[in-house]
Amino acid sequence: MSEVREKALLAKEASAKLASLTTGQKNTALLRMAEALIAEQESIIEANAKDLKRGQESGTSSSLLDRLALNPERIAGMAEGLRQIAELTDPIGDTLESFVRPNGLRVEKIRVPLGVIGIIYEARPNVTVDAAGLCLKTGNAVVLRGGSSALSSNERIVEVLQAALTGTDLPPMAVQLISNPDRSSVDEMLKLNGLLDVLIPRGGSSLIQTVVQNASVPVIETGAGICHTFVDESAKPDMAEKIAINAKVQRPSVCNSMETLLVHSHFAELHLAALADKLTALGVQLYGCPDTRKLVPAIQTASEEAWDTEYNDYILNVKIVRHLDDALAHIRTHGTMHSECIVTENESHAQRFLHEVDAAAVYHNASTRFTDGFEFGFGAEIGISTQKLHARGPMGLPALTSTKYRIYGDGQIRE
Amino acid sequence: MSEVREKALLAKEASAKLASLTTGQKNTALLRMAEALIAEQESIIEANAKDLKRGQESGTSSSLLDRLALNPERIAGMAEGLRQIAELTDPIGDTLESFVRPNGLRVEKIRVPLGVIGIIYEARPNVTVDAAGLCLKTGNAVVLRGGSSALSSNERIVEVLQAALTGTDLPPMAVQLISNPDRSSVDEMLKLNGLLDVLIPRGGSSLIQTVVQNASVPVIETGAGICHTFVDESAKPDMAEKIAINAKVQRPSVCNSMETLLVHSHFAELHLAALADKLTALGVQLYGCPDTRKLVPAIQTASEEAWDTEYNDYILNVKIVRHLDDALAHIRTHGTMHSECIVTENESHAQRFLHEVDAAAVYHNASTRFTDGFEFGFGAEIGISTQKLHARGPMGLPALTSTKYRIYGDGQIRE
Repeated sequence: MSEVREKALLAKEASAKLASLTTGQKNTALLRMAEALIAEQESIIEANAKDLKRGQESGTSSSLLDRLALNPERIAGMAEGLRQIAELTDPIGDTLESFVRPNGLRVEKIRVPLGVIGIIYEARPNVTVDAAGLCLKTGNAVVLRGGSSALSSNERIVEVLQAALTGTDLPPMAVQLISNPDRSSVDEMLKLNGLLDVLIPRGGSSLIQTVVQNASVPVIETGAGICHTFVDESAKPDMAEKIAINAKVQRPSVCNSMETLLVHSHFAELHLAALADKLTALGVQLYGCPDTRKLVPAIQTASEEAWDTEYNDYILNVKIVRHLDDALAHIRTHGTMHSECIVTENESHAQRFLHEVDAAAVYHNASTRFTDGFEFGFGAEIGISTQKLHARGPMGLPALTSTKYRIYGDGQIRE
Repeated sequence: MSEVREKALLAKEASAKLASLTTGQKNTALLRMAEALIAEQESIIEANAKDLKRGQESGTSSSLLDRLALNPERIAGMAEGLRQIAELTDPIGDTLESFVRPNGLRVEKIRVPLGVIGIIYEARPNVTVDAAGLCLKTGNAVVLRGGSSALSSNERIVEVLQAALTGTDLPPMAVQLISNPDRSSVDEMLKLNGLLDVLIPRGGSSLIQTVVQNASVPVIETGAGICHTFVDESAKPDMAEKIAINAKVQRPSVCNSMETLLVHSHFAELHLAALADKLTALGVQLYGCPDTRKLVPAIQTASEEAWDTEYNDYILNVKIVRHLDDALAHIRTHGTMHSECIVTENESHAQRFLHEVDAAAVYHNASTRFTDGFEFGFGAEIGISTQKLHARGPMGLPALTSTKYRIYGDGQIRE
């Protein structure tokens, strides 16, 4: 039997036990896991050193090596993450609906775990701990398939977590890590219907598209964000500037940062030059449409592909539009239904934007950078769904649950 | 451009308009559609006659021909279905959550349409009307791909529906039918990410598995039901008999009917022979495990495959188990997570069964035949989901919706 199938079977077996644990039992296990990470940090850092050495030898970029590197502070952060998950409200067992039918049948709709969740991710080993914690808290077993660059770190972390679970009510086999770094192990996970209930890819768009295009197991698509900020004619210049700058430069590498700024032509005439100067001073490289370049000649010409590019970097497209409908049409064509913002003092324009833009999160007068489980107050985030099925936008614990109907009768049959 | 892509594009364009319609506008359109079906029934029956003729010539079974056949009564039923959908509460626009963050951001979670729904189905032309009605009521456009045997009927029905929408606020292009009966049109729909938001297959397990295994568009899996009834030691004999018979023979062809009866050995010794006689008298062919055959020698031996077979017919497997755990293990191995029932007077057994069995619907002392949107009081049903993502069990209107976050700020940026 392949490693993937074997470990998925162990996870499935564990998931049957997990489903009936109390919140207290799960929290105890999470806190044990947190303690164990701290207690075993030396061996984790040793394993991580192997990954870093391999990375250096193979010429991995320094920014990637930085994301991969573990130290006592980062391990303490991982442990603290588990403690925070332990403190979150457990959604499992909640009664979502309850009703009695005319024939006397009582029907209850109850929140239950999804079962076994497959997580396919890249680089950062903190995802290993975070994903395991969120899945276990919601009564799910998890099959983790991290990137090969973090394999030694992930293996040691999962050993530590499994050892910590021994002696708790939570079966250690509920956390599984696929050690085979070959692409074939991903391919196998994608087709493991019946053992995996859902796949969540976390990483770059190529990883996510591979999973979306090839999986027969249900997928929650996350990630890609070509987010727009539309500065309307009536926008307050200060507010527009503050929001646009924040959406672009507060953390350009993430999916909720802005890739394209749409500016109403009247606003642009008065304020675009100043805004472009400020963005440039902050290190942002600007690409613009022909009208933009008429106003700010220093801006380079945006290619046709630019509008469909997720830079995740200090790069921004700028386009001048004539009215709200232009902005809506541009977003409809080039957006990825992630996060979209209008800056305006015109209430009816705000309402049209909030209603007509089809995205997970639509903002009036606030930065798109708020699309985040923690910022929304969920206390956790397993990712940001960009699909419409099951969950949309930042996913907290309820996104890792399903439901079932319990029906209580006293001999009812269907006529 | 292929027919599929062209029609999906038209549907997507329509869906943007549909999303902002009021309930009243949608209901008016649904009632117009109902009227048009009645007014145009002659031409629909004529088109249907072509399908029936083709079916007869190609040797289609009489039961399939019966399902395919339309007459004034059946068309009246389809129209009545639309009128009932018009009367249902519209879930679109509902505020599911609303909260204010410490920074003053107001966040609302709103129910919105999924967008464009692809329905791939077989034989019965009433699905064409039903699916269109449910999708439109929830603000979704729909791309229908019915079976080739009903193509003429479906084409005429969709023409009638589109004509009925002309002059209403609901764009006629919101209902699209794929006319190409070739398998390639299904294959194309499965990969139409970006144009179709979800696929719902309705039909036999081979159709459903084709869709589940090959689609990159998110799928809601429906249908397959290997449902069990477990008659526990303490079951009331009358109730057990009534429930078992109902679950098997009230309508054997559907997914929520029973395929395997699990009987506690003590109950079996006293009552199985009588129950087997009654089932046989009702035309049910029985297959049993060795212990069953000791008690009722007339029963044929069940093959290993029998336990994994969805008969949808007057056929039933019978297995004797020694205790609840045996029954739970059998269901875990052979069930399809659809509907499962325990008949017992033992409250702790009932609770364990209801908690531990992982299925969309778990019953205590009632027939599995109740797993149905109408029986649950939803007033409609687009299918019964057997997956855990997005929707599970009978799907009413909310299963055809997604959500979006609307965020209201006054200049908030992320620190």
